[in-house]
Amino acid sequence: MSRFFDKISPLDRRSSPLEDADDASRPGALQHHSPRAASYSASDASVSLGHLFRPVGHAHNGHHVVVQLGKVASDGKGTAEEGGDRAISGPLPFVLAFSNLTYSVRRSRKGCSLFWRSDAGEEQGRKVLLNAISGEAREGEILAVLGASGSGKSTLIDALANRIVRESLEGCITLNGEKLEGRLLKVISAYVMQDDLLYPMLTVEETLMFSAEFRLPRYLSAAKKMSRVQALIDQLGLRAAAGTIIGDEIHRGVSGGERRRVSIGIDIIHDPILLFLDEPTSGLDSTSAYMVVKVLQRIAHSGSVVITSVHQPSYRILCLLDRLLIISRGSTVYAGPPTDLHPFFSDFGQPIPDNESPTEFVLDLIRELEATPEGAKSLVEFNHARQAVPVVSAGGGEKTFFSLEDAIGASISRGKLVSGAEGTATTAAAVPKHANPFWMETLVLTKRSLANTRRMPELFVMRLGLVLVTGFIFATIFWRLDDTPKGVQERLGFFAIAMSTMFYTCADALPIFIQERNIFMRETAYNAYRRSSYVLSHSLVGFPPLVLLSIAFALTTFFAVGLAGGLQGFVFFVLMVLASFWTGSGFVTFLSGVVPHVMLGYTVVVAILAYFLLFSGFFINRDRIHDYWIWFHYLSLVKYPYEAVMQNEFGRAGRCFSRGVQMFANTPVEGLTEAAKERALAAISSALGMNMTSTTCMTTGADVLRQQSITQLGKWGCLGVTVAWGFFFRGLFYVTLLLGSKNKRR
Amino acid sequence: MSRFFDKISPLDRRSSPLEDADDASRPGALQHHSPRAASYSASDASVSLGHLFRPVGHAHNGHHVVVQLGKVASDGKGTAEEGGDRAISGPLPFVLAFSNLTYSVRRSRKGCSLFWRSDAGEEQGRKVLLNAISGEAREGEILAVLGASGSGKSTLIDALANRIVRESLEGCITLNGEKLEGRLLKVISAYVMQDDLLYPMLTVEETLMFSAEFRLPRYLSAAKKMSRVQALIDQLGLRAAAGTIIGDEIHRGVSGGERRRVSIGIDIIHDPILLFLDEPTSGLDSTSAYMVVKVLQRIAHSGSVVITSVHQPSYRILCLLDRLLIISRGSTVYAGPPTDLHPFFSDFGQPIPDNESPTEFVLDLIRELEATPEGAKSLVEFNHARQAVPVVSAGGGEKTFFSLEDAIGASISRGKLVSGAEGTATTAAAVPKHANPFWMETLVLTKRSLANTRRMPELFVMRLGLVLVTGFIFATIFWRLDDTPKGVQERLGFFAIAMSTMFYTCADALPIFIQERNIFMRETAYNAYRRSSYVLSHSLVGFPPLVLLSIAFALTTFFAVGLAGGLQGFVFFVLMVLASFWTGSGFVTFLSGVVPHVMLGYTVVVAILAYFLLFSGFFINRDRIHDYWIWFHYLSLVKYPYEAVMQNEFGRAGRCFSRGVQMFANTPVEGLTEAAKERALAAISSALGMNMTSTTCMTTGADVLRQQSITQLGKWGCLGVTVAWGFFFRGLFYVTLLLGSKNKRR
Repeated sequence: MSRFFDKISPLDRRSSPLEDADDASRPGALQHHSPRAASYSASDASVSLGHLFRPVGHAHNGHHVVVQLGKVASDGKGTAEEGGDRAISGPLPFVLAFSNLTYSVRRSRKGCSLFWRSDAGEEQGRKVLLNAISGEAREGEILAVLGASGSGKSTLIDALANRIVRESLEGCITLNGEKLEGRLLKVISAYVMQDDLLYPMLTVEETLMFSAEFRLPRYLSAAKKMSRVQALIDQLGLRAAAGTIIGDEIHRGVSGGERRRVSIGIDIIHDPILLFLDEPTSGLDSTSAYMVVKVLQRIAHSGSVVITSVHQPSYRILCLLDRLLIISRGSTVYAGPPTDLHPFFSDFGQPIPDNESPTEFVLDLIRELEATPEGAKSLVEFNHARQAVPVVSAGGGEKTFFSLEDAIGASISRGKLVSGAEGTATTAAAVPKHANPFWMETLVLTKRSLANTRRMPELFVMRLGLVLVTGFIFATIFWRLDDTPKGVQERLGFFAIAMSTMFYTCADALPIFIQERNIFMRETAYNAYRRSSYVLSHSLVGFPPLVLLSIAFALTTFFAVGLAGGLQGFVFFVLMVLASFWTGSGFVTFLSGVVPHVMLGYTVVVAILAYFLLFSGFFINRDRIHDYWIWFHYLSLVKYPYEAVMQNEFGRAGRCFSRGVQMFANTPVEGLTEAAKERALAAISSALGMNMTSTTCMTTGADVLRQQSITQLGKWGCLGVTVAWGFFFRGLFYVTLLLGSKNKRR
Repeated sequence: MSRFFDKISPLDRRSSPLEDADDASRPGALQHHSPRAASYSASDASVSLGHLFRPVGHAHNGHHVVVQLGKVASDGKGTAEEGGDRAISGPLPFVLAFSNLTYSVRRSRKGCSLFWRSDAGEEQGRKVLLNAISGEAREGEILAVLGASGSGKSTLIDALANRIVRESLEGCITLNGEKLEGRLLKVISAYVMQDDLLYPMLTVEETLMFSAEFRLPRYLSAAKKMSRVQALIDQLGLRAAAGTIIGDEIHRGVSGGERRRVSIGIDIIHDPILLFLDEPTSGLDSTSAYMVVKVLQRIAHSGSVVITSVHQPSYRILCLLDRLLIISRGSTVYAGPPTDLHPFFSDFGQPIPDNESPTEFVLDLIRELEATPEGAKSLVEFNHARQAVPVVSAGGGEKTFFSLEDAIGASISRGKLVSGAEGTATTAAAVPKHANPFWMETLVLTKRSLANTRRMPELFVMRLGLVLVTGFIFATIFWRLDDTPKGVQERLGFFAIAMSTMFYTCADALPIFIQERNIFMRETAYNAYRRSSYVLSHSLVGFPPLVLLSIAFALTTFFAVGLAGGLQGFVFFVLMVLASFWTGSGFVTFLSGVVPHVMLGYTVVVAILAYFLLFSGFFINRDRIHDYWIWFHYLSLVKYPYEAVMQNEFGRAGRCFSRGVQMFANTPVEGLTEAAKERALAAISSALGMNMTSTTCMTTGADVLRQQSITQLGKWGCLGVTVAWGFFFRGLFYVTLLLGSKNKRR
């Protein structure tokens, strides 16, 4: 394996102690070790997973033990050395082969959608993204897919990682000669996406530890999980950053390259046999990119097949790659080791100049060819003709590999594939779909979410501030409302606007939910946990802050406005505010699962909430809403909290909101003297025999409720319906997660 | 100048016809010209600006004429050849020299700001961004500043381009030995930012033509401006893309590399003497990056000083650079031509390996050194010692250049610096600040904005859809309101919510305004036009759609709800809706000038509008608002439209909203029989001697207005105040633009 290394590189990279320390150093470049570099050098003696499965006493001693195993041992070659990086000898246990992969999509019409980014499609018809691509990738090696943007690199990685629905993809993918079943592939492989979707406030170690909790089997003790994480930290060269938080725009965290390695780490925590990566070096500076690929090399040497797309590898990175597959518009233009690039392009008539980076030259050449009317056809054909001559299959033409079952079994014994390693389970069926039971997942998710949010108090403080400021404005503007017809009208306004506030406040959480959703999508794509436990934990973690917000809002407004009911009334008010927050956040959570963008989500939430308010019964009473709109009235989430707090206020006997001559408000009589009004009242009183005096109550709270058509559900009923809506939206959220996270191309 | 070229490059690049055709080709790589490559080859014969200033008859014949000019000609060396790219002979006319540039900033505390991205600052104290950097850049050459991210590349470019306030910057910058005054620098230079801020729906040609209209002097005819644009299109290698729109995420446009070249083109339309660029190749693939630098080379050869930062130039790009300045943490680690890199690093003890890209090797080495406790000190000192030996000042040790005035004069005669070229003006004072008068700017801005928005009808259609849907919902829910006390209450609700809708609808335009603001910032940074003409044109272009929206909303709601006043009432309603739109968009425009992010802007707009609605007088009447809040009531933008349409509805005599026994609504009498109510009415009537029968009007429109405390301004007064608010916010917008677009570091 290091043959190519020694041949192509003018420097003996392997001889540098700093090289293994992963500090991207060149031999002789530096005479001193940085403290960081020194700490990295632990990585070569990293604890392999195999250790974790042996008696604990052996776990950390670093002895090399030969493990003998059934069929593997019987043919006398299955000695799997541990602890060393390059343990494979004899026939290669794993070979992923693919042949004639072809994939095309219908060209989209000119994108007219305003919110969803439409893929650039010019005309109608089918566009070939992959055109009969063949190749193979071996354990211990890195297969790198190269090409310009749009050449089909990511599509090929997706095809191999089973991220394209099988019906759409022609061709054949086999592992050790056997067709790969989707469920098995999911268990033995990992796919690392381009984006780093991580909780910003967790440290590197915590991030990996949570990943271990999700993906390593539950019979593994916490200590063993911890030692796997520690080994991984060394393998990833993240020792110095282990205690640093991931960070985001506001919180300073690890560097971009370190973040990328953490992303890789969480997907390979279970030590997969197949590792797929989509441009893991994009956006990184050359040193960080080099270190990422160095980590990939180490993963390959630990007994994995690594397949990655790389945009434009530098010379140093090229030296780490074992096999290249260069594609242009979906067709192979080169397949072989990097060393063969020079003779290949010399034979093609375009020798690579000495001073130039080979990949830069080759990719530029391909781009130039693509600009011509014929495209890169000449190169594709030249490669095809050359491949017909058996030159490329260097190092393993005879194809003597183990059966898939044996190979996986051997791998597991060596400590690979931890999540699937139920003792000696070697078949796909024996592998459990999830590493942990439902309640354990919920617990871990809750722990993680709490750890993350606890370190980000600003968000809660901001929402609290918003609620307090709004509460303060309400309290001062609706200060001690009186029991008059005007006071009644103002109470209606206060309740309507106050109950909408809960919902609008929840809309501010939309960006957080959308960010979380992306993390969720990645994690459930490979069955890290159940969707249901995510929904449950999401609700659990979100609830306590809502309680605090509710109490804060009620405290600032209830007594200042002078609402009725004393302590009992206050408690109900708090409960109702809490229920509104609960439903509002449920509604926004659901929307976050549906809308593609934050901006669109915000617009939609604000608009829908405005309609809810309009139909709540405040602007137009229920008995005045036309039949064709009455359904929307019952859908309005604001209706129930509004009616509940109205009943809490007006449902009590003994209060009066219009007394004696106040009944003449808004009539011509209002303008007369007090004495005249009393005369008029006396006249009615005697005419009707009703004994109305200036202290007789003309409008009770019950009258107000009747006028407002609040006559259906009681206040506890309204509370119940509101809470039920909250559960309903969380259920809907669960459904959108089920439907939305298939992660496959059609 | 081509000395280095021929020496460092193993290929004779200059001999390739495709090279000049700018198709990023290598000699011999392709035997066929693509149609696109063929069209590019016009560029070497591009029309120089000098032609434009000669009689029109000569404009396109390509003759080379020697121009003789005052002092320049008198010393016998000032022959400036035209039409050819590399015309400079004899002493170099322009040399930008800088010495001991030092700049430090106060370290910020740990960034706690939630919305504004805080720069990463660890501890308190001063951080040195530039540390005594010296160097020089010459006409006809590209000086490239290299370094890792955070090394101070952009800071140095900013310092040279006068984008750091002079007081903060130590050191000295001279052009031809004379200190550069800010105003002169602004006229003779251009600064190209990293971001491409362009109107997405304009074509490449239109974009450049509008730039020509802004920055070329008005005495130049349209035909001459057009030929400058055509020449520039060839120089930029954009012939094939000239008719393509720029595009955005939704609309397919030119490629990233083409867009970048358009960005450069709009800043160099006036053919500046000094050109500064901040990482012009970032985000581009290698071919596009190469073509951009090739364009820079051509600009340099046309008689400019080009200074650019480059993140990590590929080998091919390195061959185009004349001078490198490599910095590490603000200190120079290398200054000199690319050819000297090999001997320099050999002498330093770190020879560059043959197969590697020199810049990749050097930058990696620097990064490694930076990771050590001493940093790159050894290299900085090595470079310093080496610079002391007079090795670097190759090609011009004797410093015999023209005086600045003469050099600028000569340049202008050769056709450079079009915006400053008022005939023979050669001093800074004679150069006008703006190329065009106010009204011309407004006209051109309006034309451009119209061209852009006309091709993006979706945005208007979306807003229209939103207004129509909302209008439809209002119309159906408030369908034909009756003249009863309940009907009055519903009218109040309708007016309050309808008038807020105008404002909320305007909030949707926030992202567009923020996008436009960025374009504006860039363009006014170099005085492309006045801020006032931008504000005026912005208002002019935005107005007609508002008229359509107003009519659409009024048509859907006015008659359906059954509002009063017939045609006259309808016209006033339309006007009032229009005034609300006008003020709302003014308010949102103003906010777009203040808030840094779209999301924050949206939250702020929604919150403020909610408070406006709360204080409008609908939820709580003016006479019931406490004194300490009354100021907010008068600030509320919703108050005035609300009161205006209320008066439009209720201000008419002859309508009655409560008649006879309806006065007993909400009293115990309401529940009695009709006959009893009539008896009660008769009793009051006789008791008071008021003759109230069942048809007597108890509440007129005027009564409603009085109850709602709408007693101050008349409806036309409210309309006037609303319109005035609209003007006020546009004035504020102007002020924020004045304050916010200084574009300088402190």
